[in-house]
Order: sequence, then structure tokens, then C-alpha cells
Amino acid sequence: MSAAHLVLALSCPDRPGIVHAVSGVLAEHGGNITESQQFGDPSTGLFFMRVQVETQAPRAEVEEAMAALAHTFDMTFRLDDVGRPQRTIIMASKEGHCLSDLLFRQRSQRLPIDPVAVVANHPDLEPIAAFYGVPFHHVPVTRETKDAAEAELLRMVRDLDVELVVLARYMQILSDRLCTELAGNVINIHHSFLPSFKGARPYAQAHNRGVKLIGATAHYVTADLDEGPIIEQDVERVTHTDDVAEMVARGQDVERRVLARAVRWHAEHRVLVDGRRTVVFS
Amino acid sequence: MSAAHLVLALSCPDRPGIVHAVSGVLAEHGGNITESQQFGDPSTGLFFMRVQVETQAPRAEVEEAMAALAHTFDMTFRLDDVGRPQRTIIMASKEGHCLSDLLFRQRSQRLPIDPVAVVANHPDLEPIAAFYGVPFHHVPVTRETKDAAEAELLRMVRDLDVELVVLARYMQILSDRLCTELAGNVINIHHSFLPSFKGARPYAQAHNRGVKLIGATAHYVTADLDEGPIIEQDVERVTHTDDVAEMVARGQDVERRVLARAVRWHAEHRVLVDGRRTVVFS
Amino acid sequence: MSAAHLVLALSCPDRPGIVHAVSGVLAEHGGNITESQQFGDPSTGLFFMRVQVETQAPRAEVEEAMAALAHTFDMTFRLDDVGRPQRTIIMASKEGHCLSDLLFRQRSQRLPIDPVAVVANHPDLEPIAAFYGVPFHHVPVTRETKDAAEAELLRMVRDLDVELVVLARYMQILSDRLCTELAGNVINIHHSFLPSFKGARPYAQAHNRGVKLIGATAHYVTADLDEGPIIEQDVERVTHTDDVAEMVARGQDVERRVLARAVRWHAEHRVLVDGRRTVVFS
Amino acid sequence: MSAAHLVLALSCPDRPGIVHAVSGVLAEHGGNITESQQFGDPSTGLFFMRVQVETQAPRAEVEEAMAALAHTFDMTFRLDDVGRPQRTIIMASKEGHCLSDLLFRQRSQRLPIDPVAVVANHPDLEPIAAFYGVPFHHVPVTRETKDAAEAELLRMVRDLDVELVVLARYMQILSDRLCTELAGNVINIHHSFLPSFKGARPYAQAHNRGVKLIGATAHYVTADLDEGPIIEQDVERVTHTDDVAEMVARGQDVERRVLARAVRWHAEHRVLVDGRRTVVFS
Repeated sequence: MSAAHLVLALSCPDRPGIVHAVSGVLAEHGGNITESQQFGDPSTGLFFMRVQVETQAPRAEVEEAMAALAHTFDMTFRLDDVGRPQRTIIMASKEGHCLSDLLFRQRSQRLPIDPVAVVANHPDLEPIAAFYGVPFHHVPVTRETKDAAEAELLRMVRDLDVELVVLARYMQILSDRLCTELAGNVINIHHSFLPSFKGARPYAQAHNRGVKLIGATAHYVTADLDEGPIIEQDVERVTHTDDVAEMVARGQDVERRVLARAVRWHAEHRVLVDGRRTVVFS
Repeated sequence: MSAAHLVLALSCPDRPGIVHAVSGVLAEHGGNITESQQFGDPSTGLFFMRVQVETQAPRAEVEEAMAALAHTFDMTFRLDDVGRPQRTIIMASKEGHCLSDLLFRQRSQRLPIDPVAVVANHPDLEPIAAFYGVPFHHVPVTRETKDAAEAELLRMVRDLDVELVVLARYMQILSDRLCTELAGNVINIHHSFLPSFKGARPYAQAHNRGVKLIGATAHYVTADLDEGPIIEQDVERVTHTDDVAEMVARGQDVERRVLARAVRWHAEHRVLVDGRRTVVFS
Repeated sequence: MSAAHLVLALSCPDRPGIVHAVSGVLAEHGGNITESQQFGDPSTGLFFMRVQVETQAPRAEVEEAMAALAHTFDMTFRLDDVGRPQRTIIMASKEGHCLSDLLFRQRSQRLPIDPVAVVANHPDLEPIAAFYGVPFHHVPVTRETKDAAEAELLRMVRDLDVELVVLARYMQILSDRLCTELAGNVINIHHSFLPSFKGARPYAQAHNRGVKLIGATAHYVTADLDEGPIIEQDVERVTHTDDVAEMVARGQDVERRVLARAVRWHAEHRVLVDGRRTVVFS
Repeated sequence: MSAAHLVLALSCPDRPGIVHAVSGVLAEHGGNITESQQFGDPSTGLFFMRVQVETQAPRAEVEEAMAALAHTFDMTFRLDDVGRPQRTIIMASKEGHCLSDLLFRQRSQRLPIDPVAVVANHPDLEPIAAFYGVPFHHVPVTRETKDAAEAELLRMVRDLDVELVVLARYMQILSDRLCTELAGNVINIHHSFLPSFKGARPYAQAHNRGVKLIGATAHYVTADLDEGPIIEQDVERVTHTDDVAEMVARGQDVERRVLARAVRWHAEHRVLVDGRRTVVFS
């Protein structure tokens, strides 16, 4: 019987003995730790840990032992196979740079997601989805159809066992109800260095303010618009010669880079929510 | 008679023929252009130019010819010797990293300023000023003494022919009147990536928001707090392991780097104000 | 008659009066300069200039006047319409990240090239070319067929009026003869921060040396392998946890970014060769 | 009795059970792990670990227990108090930017070193050392005096219980014998992005090659010049307008930043040698 390679990600109130207890469970199951990171946040009192372990023991046994431990330590945890692609819906509108980039990376074995559907409120990006062999769903959204559109999305999430929804420059605001329902499983890319330039047309805002760097922010979606926990950010230098159109164009490079990193880290169980912040074991 | 090396920086409403007219004036005075940059901003309709020129002609003659041109083109311009140190007051409070850095760079011939005084509202940094041989003025500021303190600063600016005031982590807000009086000649370093985290304790704000990059912003001071035209910005990566104290410490590197660049570019007449923005011919 | 928007890029031995003479020619043709950059290199004694100008005059007239000036100043120059797509052949092997990225950018109006053909020594990337509607030529290269393959490439360059050849991770070394024939018109992306790690398997070399940053370099191809004038470079941080495979994967992001910038700048006539170096008016 | 805060850094051949054994020792001594990082390098078969732990147990007891474990696992380890300043000699020549920066950071509580002496082969930097209250030793080095100078350095290392020697732009090559004697405890800053531009005048080499980024490299000194394990590197963008003097000046910012990081990480026991590479638990 060949060894499995498991990843364990957990968080719980901080107190002495957690690492020893967890490594004990893994040792009891013949586990060899290949990667491990911990973090205790004094400001929230929470402890976070991510371990990759090779073991001959059945995953169910490890899961059971961890469940007992979780009870003791008031712990939430996930146990998964290292590298298992997460079932993902990608949502987009008309701009294809993020969608195209995610699908290219997935195809190149660089992104452990299984893109089960592309959902868009415009038909423009269908050819990209088709090229990569991903079903494309055109779900237009108007004030009248928004509720129905979200219901359809939720249905797809359930029917397709979707674990992650990525808003790849999807230009619609999700309802509070949807945000709550999918909390922690929706990643958005905002085209500014948050908290600067929330809301609409961030590059126009950035140009107007005369900033010397533009940025992008990948974050979990919450009911509080552009206020969810930040997963990753990056910036790129601009100068006085760059007008809004040039900023938009150059910003796309940052957006797709930042979103791809965030999705990858999430899919590898490297991101743990710590109140308003995230712990990223990258 | 040896050649002078002059720098000319100008702005005016954009229209055809400016470059040709300016290069004509310089050619008439036997000038050889060694460096030249131009920029027309469609959004403000303004044109900006910076030229370095070697010429045997007396500076006064070039100045006179340029003045005539300025009249025709509704132009404002400065003509200076390349590399002439700008007479500068550096203001600080208790944190010495920016002050120390500026003085070290000046001493190392890396910053064309002539630091005629250090003015601080606390006595702590006197030894640094003394080490670099710069007169230190301790001018405490309370609600009661603020007017008198600003009057003393203005008097020093006049008496010492000061051309530039640098707020090197000076933790006092200048009055509107002072801002207006010294407009365009006061550079501040704000310890955040503006427009994020204006006001007090920006690193605490940044930590609270969970950003993944911290930054610093050098800008001209205007009556509108932290809203003046931005000259330079930069960022540094932080992670979940960095608490506020660590952010403060790491931010200091960014602050001094950003401030030093801004002061240098200003002192070399590379920064021109373009409405709320700046043109930086770096 | 509507105005044309022209770009002029030139170089010549440095001496007084060049800028005035060039701006004079443009002024005589009613030209309005919208963008202009100059640089005199003391180490080579050469002068470089790039101007964008709006004019009602026929391009042929401007070209004629510039030709006369070029004679006087021993100048080489190019005059082109701003934004005209350069006829380009992209060469690749099996790795598609650079090819895919270039074609996506071209399609998104972000790269002023007209990709007239993709030439590859392996068939793998045909679907990407097909998706973007670019003719794909599979030209295998062995020791025996190398001469014939290069002859075919040269024929295509001539028949298709090709102005630029981009080696987008094309894993074959061009012959000296081909390098000479196409000098200045072939851009390669090397997957290291040159001059470190020339030759084969640069990421394995980088991992072995334990560097903390990996990089990529876009350069003009010359007969001297990996020694041609550098157009652009960038780096990305790695850590001890990144093995060779991870470096390869992360390096692809840098490679495509660096190559895209270099191709864009070249296509916009922003790159001028200055001996072993380049002047880049970005 | 108040708790001590200890740091443990270790390496050994990789095998199952190390983490559990180490955390077991710490748990037996009532230790609460506040920070922990591990890494197993498949390419060298070595395992690395750094733990910070709060414990009421006497340090000697923990040390004894770890020594027993070290025997079992063929492990080398260091146990120290978190934040204890390492006794350090800083060596320099004429350029003061690195020396000045290190001493300013140390004074500002940002660098856990105890600078017991500055040793320089030129007298120029004496005032900086004096300002920070560090004894300055002028030890000129000529071909004839080199052996004596190194003997004096070794004597100081012994007499002053020196744990770390930092070459802060010290422009002399250490003898093989000295390199061997102090192996793993001497950090040098090389003013290029190694392995590019080894040896003398790296900025002139960089300018000549036309690179678009310049860099600096902090590494452990070995008998093999500029080939020791790299601790940290960083780069800064340059353009065609930057001549060698400007590169030298801008490079100084990178040098001091990179050196300060490397010294800090070393002093915090975050750097472990892994063959030709380093593991940096930053």
C-alpha cells in the first residue's frame, strides 16, 4: 500500500500543547511531516497551523483522530489530499484577462482547481471557455432577474459540488444573502490597492489622485463591499505619462497575477481567516 | 570662459511650437542640450518641460530671453545651476530615521540640499544634527505656542533664504496659513500608501485592515491634510506574522527611501505640479 | 484632411543643435509634438531621440526632410505611424505560456503587433495559434534539417514582409548567419537574470547556486549566445522551499511579463541600440 | 520565577519523527511554542527547524535534553535567548553607508547585535564609530602586513568573545585560513546580484553589460571568493540614463538594505546553511 500525501489546515484558540498534540496524532499514524507552518496571533488569541504529511494510514482514520483532538481544542480543521483540484466556478463579465489566465494556468498544471463551469452575465467570453473545454453559462443579470440569477448560481454550486467561486472581474455585486451562504468560499479580485479606491472605476480614481503605484487586491467576499479579508495584494509603478486607459491596461497584469496567487493558495489550503485578516502559509 | 551647466524647468498651457521655441532660445545662446524631457497632459491641457543645457552664455542673458518667451507662452519657469544645493530646513520630532538618512546622503554628496537648520518640537534628535554640523533649533509646540512656533519658522525661512522645508516625520500639522505661505516648497512623508490610512497611526490602521503591503508617500503639503500632490510612493511586503511594531519598524525603511527620492527630485527641479498630480522627470 | 500621428526614432553622433534641427523640421511641417525623449550617452558619444508628432503634412514630405537632416547629422532614423502593428513571426517550441500571453495581449489591443505566423519545431502549440487565428507552421529542426529550416524561416520573413521575429521560448539556437541577417529584429526571452546562468537549464543552475531571486531577460539576438543587448529584465523572489520545478513555474510569470514589455516597446519604436546596451524610452 | 523566551535552531538528516521528538522535549519542559518553522530539503536530505518557546524551565535543562536528542538524530543545534544581542565586529574601509546604517539600526533597537568593535583598514570612518560609541580600530592592510592584521583580528575575536563578523563593504579579501577559522560566522555584502559580476568593480561591469536591474548579495564568506552561501539579495531598477557613478550611488541603498536584513536574520538564528544554499526562516 502506497503512502498518501495529506494536508491538514486548522485553527483554534491558542494555548500550550497544540503542536505537540497534532504532531502526536500524525506520529501515531506513521506520518512523516514534509511541510509545516504555525502562527499564533496575539491580537486575536487564535492559533493557526498547516501541515503536509505522508502516511500509510487510511485518511478516514486520521480524520477520526483529528476530530477527537478538534473537540478537545475547540478546533476547526480541514484534511485533504495534497494537490486535489478544488471544484470551482469562475464568474466573469466581459474582460477576459483573469479568466484566460486562470484557465491557462489550470491547463498547465499550475493551479489545483477543477473548473466545472464559467458563469458570465455577458456572452463575450464563451470562446475562451470553449477553448479550454469548460461549460459556459450565460446568465444575464438585471435588477429584475438578479434574484433568479443568484438562485441559479446556488443551484449550480449544489448540483456540481462546487467548493470555490472565483469572481474573475465579475462586475456584479452579490447579494448579502449569497455572500453569507457562500462565506469563505468566494474570492474576488478588486482592481485597486484596497482600502484605497473602493467601489466603481478605481483606476479613474487612482489617476485623479495622482498615485505613483497602482494595485490589485484579492479578498474573500463578504456582505461588506470591498471589505472582506485580504488574501493577496500587489502593485505596479505608474508615472505621470500613464492615462486612465494605460492604467487599466497595466493593471490587468497585476490583477491576474494577484488573483492567480490567491486562488492557488486557497486551493492548497494555505489561507486561513483570522478575524478581518488572513493567515497565508505561502 | 568655461561653460555653465543650467537646468530649466517650465510649465504652460499646451500648444504647438513650445519645444521649438525653447530649443531655439537655447540654441541662440550656444547651448548644448544634455538632457531633456517633455510631457503634455491632455487632462489638464498643460505642458511641462525640463532641460539641462551647457552654455557659455551668462545665465542672466538666458534668463532674460526665457522671460520674454514665458510672456508669450503664459509660462512659469525656473532656471538654476545644475546641482546647486537648495537651502533647506528639515523638521522632525522624535523619530530620527528620516533625518539621519537625509543628512547622511547630503554628506555623501548624494542629495543636493544645503541643510541650514534642523527644527524639532522635541530635543531628542539634537545629537544627530550636531554630528552633521547642522544648527539645531528646539521649538516646542503646544496649543498655546503653535502660532509663535510657526511665526519663528517663517522668520527662519526668510532670514536664511530657505527654499525648501522637509517634514521628516514631523508630527505636527501645519496651519492653513503656513501651508499657503510655503505652498509648493514643503515636502512631507506620510507613513502609509495614500490615500489609504490618512491621519494618525496609519500602521495600526493597516494592521487592522490586514493589508499585505505597507507603504509610504512623499507629497507636497497643502491645507488639505494628506491630500497634497504625491511626489513618490513605495511599498514593502508584510505578512500575517508582522504585528504593528514590526510594521512600524519595516515601514521606516520605506519612509526614508521614499522621502530621500522625493527631496532629491525636487532639489533637482524634476518635480512639477500638475493640478492635484505631479509630473516627475526622474 | 485629418492629422496623422507619427513617431520618429533616431540616433546619431552627439553634437549641439540636433534637438533644435529636428524640432525645426517638425515645426516646418506644422507638427505638434505630443511626446519627446532624448538621451546623449557620454560613454559612446551617441545621441538618441524619440518624438511623437501630430501633423497635417504628408508623411512622405516629413520623411524627405528628415532624410536631408540625417545626411547632415550622420543619423539613422525610422518614421512610422503611431500604433501601426509590426508584422511579426512568433517562434516557439513546446512551452506555451509566452506564446499564449503575446497572442492574448495582441487580441486585447495591448500589443501593436500583427502576428502573421507562429513557427514551432514541435506541433504541440498548434491549438493556441488556431484559437487566435494565426497560421501555424510546424518546422522540425534536427542537425540535418537545421539549414533548411532556417532557409524556410528567411523565406517567410521575406514573403510575409516580416519586421520582427520573437523567440517565445524557442529552444533552438539560431545560426550566426541568421543572427546577422536579422540583426536588431529578433527578440529572445532568456529564462534567467543575465549575465547569470547563461546556456541550458538556468533554473537548475539558479537552484544549485541558492539565489534568492530568479529572473528573466529579453534581449536582441546576436551571434554571441545570450550576450545581445538587453531590452528588459525582471525578477521574482524565491525561498529555500522552492525546488527547481517551482522555480520553473514561477519563472514563467516573469518570462511572459518581461517578453511582453520588450516586444511592446520594440513595436512602438521605443528601443534603440547603443553599442552593447539599449536605450529604452518607455 | 518568570518564563524565559528561548530560540532553538537545528538541522539534521531528515527522517520521520523529528518534529514530534523536539516538540516532546519542549512540552516536557512546560514549553509553549510561539513560533515554529520546518523545512526538509529533498535535494540534500537535510531537515531544518527553528522554534521559539516560552518556558519556566532553566535553559540548562532544556539544553541537556536537546543534547541527548541531538545525539539520537545526529543533529546540530543552537539554543539561545530570544533577542540576545550577538557580539559583533563590523569591518569597513572608506565607504560608510553600510556601517552607518547598521549602527543606526542597532541604536534604534532594530538589530540584535552588540557592536564591540569597528575594524577598518582606513581611518575615514572613525567619526561614525565614535558617534555611536563603538571602539574604532584602524588596522591598515598591505601585502606585508596582511598576516599580522588578520592575526590581530583573530585575537580580537577571541578576546572579545565575538560571535559574528560583518564585512560592511570591507575592501580586502580574507585569507583562506581566516575564512576557514571563522566559517559560518562572517557575512559579506557584495555589490552585485551574484553570481553576476563577481570580483572588482561590479557596477562598472553591470553598466558595461547594460543590465536593467542592479543588485546586492549578502552571503557567508568562504575561501571561494563570492561563492559562499547566499543569505539575501535584492535589486533596484536602473535605466540607460544611469551611468556608473549613479549606479554606485543607487546601489548603496540596496547594499545596506540587504546587509541589514541578512545580519538581523543571522543574529536571530533564522539562517541555517544547507550545503551551498541557505534556509532562511524569515
